[in-house]
Amino acid sequence: MLSGIVGMPLRNDVVLGIGDDASAWRTPGLIEIGTTDALVEGVHFTFDIATWRDLGWKALAINISDVAAMGGRPLYAMVSLGLPPETEVESVADLYRGMLEVAQRFDTDICGGNISSAPVVMVSVAVIGESSGRLLERSAALPGDLIAVTGYLGGASAGLRVLRSGQDTRGEAAAVLKKAHQRPYPRVSEGQVLVDEGANAAIDLSDGLLADLGHVAQASGLAATVRAHSVPVHPAAKDALGDESLALALSGGEDYELLFTARADVVDRVKGRVHCPVAVIGDILSGDAGKVTVVDENGLPLEPPETGWEHFRSA
Amino acid sequence: MLSGIVGMPLRNDVVLGIGDDASAWRTPGLIEIGTTDALVEGVHFTFDIATWRDLGWKALAINISDVAAMGGRPLYAMVSLGLPPETEVESVADLYRGMLEVAQRFDTDICGGNISSAPVVMVSVAVIGESSGRLLERSAALPGDLIAVTGYLGGASAGLRVLRSGQDTRGEAAAVLKKAHQRPYPRVSEGQVLVDEGANAAIDLSDGLLADLGHVAQASGLAATVRAHSVPVHPAAKDALGDESLALALSGGEDYELLFTARADVVDRVKGRVHCPVAVIGDILSGDAGKVTVVDENGLPLEPPETGWEHFRSA
Repeated sequence: MLSGIVGMPLRNDVVLGIGDDASAWRTPGLIEIGTTDALVEGVHFTFDIATWRDLGWKALAINISDVAAMGGRPLYAMVSLGLPPETEVESVADLYRGMLEVAQRFDTDICGGNISSAPVVMVSVAVIGESSGRLLERSAALPGDLIAVTGYLGGASAGLRVLRSGQDTRGEAAAVLKKAHQRPYPRVSEGQVLVDEGANAAIDLSDGLLADLGHVAQASGLAATVRAHSVPVHPAAKDALGDESLALALSGGEDYELLFTARADVVDRVKGRVHCPVAVIGDILSGDAGKVTVVDENGLPLEPPETGWEHFRSA
Repeated sequence: MLSGIVGMPLRNDVVLGIGDDASAWRTPGLIEIGTTDALVEGVHFTFDIATWRDLGWKALAINISDVAAMGGRPLYAMVSLGLPPETEVESVADLYRGMLEVAQRFDTDICGGNISSAPVVMVSVAVIGESSGRLLERSAALPGDLIAVTGYLGGASAGLRVLRSGQDTRGEAAAVLKKAHQRPYPRVSEGQVLVDEGANAAIDLSDGLLADLGHVAQASGLAATVRAHSVPVHPAAKDALGDESLALALSGGEDYELLFTARADVVDRVKGRVHCPVAVIGDILSGDAGKVTVVDENGLPLEPPETGWEHFRSA
C-alpha cells in the first residue's frame, strides 16, 4: 500500500525514502535524517510494567536509535501526545522527565509538539538528526561481510518476562533485565564509529536479531548465516532463563543494539574504538535474498524450538 | 508541565522552541521549520463525517498549515499511523491517496513513517519545512498593527454542522461547507508573501478566530479589538445558518486561514499580491496582554450569545 508513495516522483532532495530505519534528505549544508515511531498503550506497553517516566525514556530512545542505525547524530525531537482526559498533570510531567533524561544524554532538543485527547496513551515522536557523512543503509551489505552486533541480546525480552511474571525473585539479574526492557540505550556514538571506519549496512535490533537481519539480507539481495554459539546472549538473561535465553537473544527484540555488516578489518577497528562489546556472529553470503540460517558449532543448521523462533518475540 | 522543557538549556541551534505554530532551527544553509500534529478517531473525526481520503488530506494539510503560518515552505513529511487490526488495506491506501493529493499540491515529499496497532485510528504527521527568510512569530505583533485574515471564516464549523445533521438539503452551499471542513487548504504561498512584504505576527486559525487572536495578543503582550461587521463570514455559512454564522466565524475553528498583523501599507501590498480575499478586521493595541474585545459598527463592545462565543467551537 506504500507503493504509491515509494513510486511517487520526488519533489525535493530526498536521499533515502520509505523502507529503512529512517529517511534522509539533503539540505544546503548537510544530509539530515528524519524518523518517527509511536508507542501505544495496550499495544507496546501497559502501566503495570512501565512508569510514565520509563515510557518517556523509551519513546524518545527508540527514535534516537533509528538515527543511530543510520550512523547519524540526533538533533531535534518533536512529540505528539495523545492522552485520555483523566490523565494527571503529574503523569505527563513524568513522561517529559523521562524524555528529558534521554534528550540530555544524547544532546537532543525537544523543540516542539502537541497534545490531544485520545482513548489510550499514545506517544508519537519524530526525531531529526544529521548524518556524519555516509548513511548506513540496510541495502548495503556485501557478500563476504561479517555480521556483528553491539552489546548483549535477549535482555529486553527477558526483562519483559520478568515484568509480566509479577515476581521479582532473582534480585540483581531481574533488575538489570527490567531496565533492559524499560530503558533501551541507543548506540549513537557506536553508529558514528561504524560510519567512520567503513561498515557497510546497519540496522537497530527492534524486531529481533533474526527478523532484523532478514531485513538487511532482503534489502541487500543476499543471504546470511548466524552462528548460534557466537550470539552474545545477555548474561542476566542466561542466569534467569537458562537455555531459553538463546531463543530470546535470536528473536526477542527490543534490545536496540546495532547489527552491522563489514569487512573483517573494519570490525577489528570498530572493536578498538567503541566502549561496548562487539561480537561477530555470522556471515553475509550470496544466496536466496533474505534467507537467514542459524547454525550450531559444527556449522550444521540449528532447528528452531517446536514453537519456532518467532514465538519468542516480545510485545 | 512543559516548563521543564521550555526552560531547558538548548544544545543545538534552536531558533524557536515550544509555543508557536511550529519550531525552527538553524542548519548550515538555512532555517528549518518543524511541526507535528495528530488526528485521533472519536476526538477529531469520525468516519461517518469523513472518508479515509479526507482524513489523509486533513492530517497532512493541518501540519502544512502550521509551516505556512511561520511563513515557510513545506518540504518533507513523516507519518506515524495507528490502526486497529481490522483495518482494510484499501482504507489505508485511500488515506495515503488523500495525503498524496496534498503533498503533490504543496511540493512535499512523504519520505518516511511507521504503522502500528492502536485501538482507534490515529494519524500523527510531522512536517519539516524551510523558512523563506524571517519567521512569522506569534509574539511579534506591534501596537498599531492592523489585524487581517485570509479567505472566509466559519465555513469549516458550518460544514461540521451540516455533516453532523446528516441532512444534505441545501445543495451547493452544503457541499462547499462540507469541503471546508474536510479539506482545509493551507495558505502556503500567502504565508510567504506575508514574510516578503513585512507582516509582523501570524497564526493559522485552527482553534477559532478569537482564541487564536488571543494567542497572538498574549504572546505579544498586547490587546486586540475585532470589528464584528468586518469579519469575512463564509458566504455559504451565511446562506445556510443566517445570523449564527457570525458566531461560527468568530469561534468555530478549523478554517486554517491565516491571521496576521501588519502596518496598513504592508496589508495593502499583501492584498495586491495574494489570490485570495484579505480582510482587515481590527487593531492591535497596548492593553491587557491577551485581551480580545469584539465591537459592533459603532465601536461598542458586542455581547457574546448567552452560551458564549466558545460554545460555537467545533470538535
